[in-house]
Amino acid sequence: MQHLSINLSERLELFSDFWRPRVIAELNDYQIKLVKIRGEFVWHQHDHTDELFICLGGCLKIELPGSTVTLNEGELFVVPKGVKHRPMADEECHAMLIEPKGVINTGDAESELTAPQDQWI
Amino acid sequence: MQHLSINLSERLELFSDFWRPRVIAELNDYQIKLVKIRGEFVWHQHDHTDELFICLGGCLKIELPGSTVTLNEGELFVVPKGVKHRPMADEECHAMLIEPKGVINTGDAESELTAPQDQWI
Repeated sequence: MQHLSINLSERLELFSDFWRPRVIAELNDYQIKLVKIRGEFVWHQHDHTDELFICLGGCLKIELPGSTVTLNEGELFVVPKGVKHRPMADEECHAMLIEPKGVINTGDAESELTAPQDQWI
Repeated sequence: MQHLSINLSERLELFSDFWRPRVIAELNDYQIKLVKIRGEFVWHQHDHTDELFICLGGCLKIELPGSTVTLNEGELFVVPKGVKHRPMADEECHAMLIEPKGVINTGDAESELTAPQDQWI
């Protein structure tokens, strides 16, 4: 069996829409996703899981109650479970997300930004 | 409460030894670790978990039975649980590991390279 590494830049070239995470790999029952971000997302929370954001390019801001975390390329942040947050970016930025399989991008929020699950690239 | 992002390059500057993973964050019951790699590790496997490697700099090779995966900066690979593997690097390289808390770096192998758990930076 031939095993190949996954190149993040190459995978990011395969889609261009915003706020629709694409799955690139699984780690046990977790998924590794790529997402392109621009503008403001919806405030939401994940009641049952933390969520890892790694900034791969551009500048990602994650608004939290009372503060904002800024992630530049090569920086990461874990949003604790149950904490309201809103990702946003003034200009296009790219991020990796890691979270358990089945997590909905908009969490507890009703939003037209809710993305389909298991969109692999 | 003030929330800060974690800068990978800054954290990598805080240690210089090889094969001793440092924990920088937790995601539920998983840990995000940084490790510096040079030379050949020991062949081992993790019977109960997959293991995610992300190359942050340099060139990481992961030998598997019958093949070798090469990871350059910005590339990742998930070693499936139960699969023998041996990380190696001809020159110093830096990687991020993500795996459940409590995973021993040398897996099932008896080795002087076994590192202590929960070494945070």
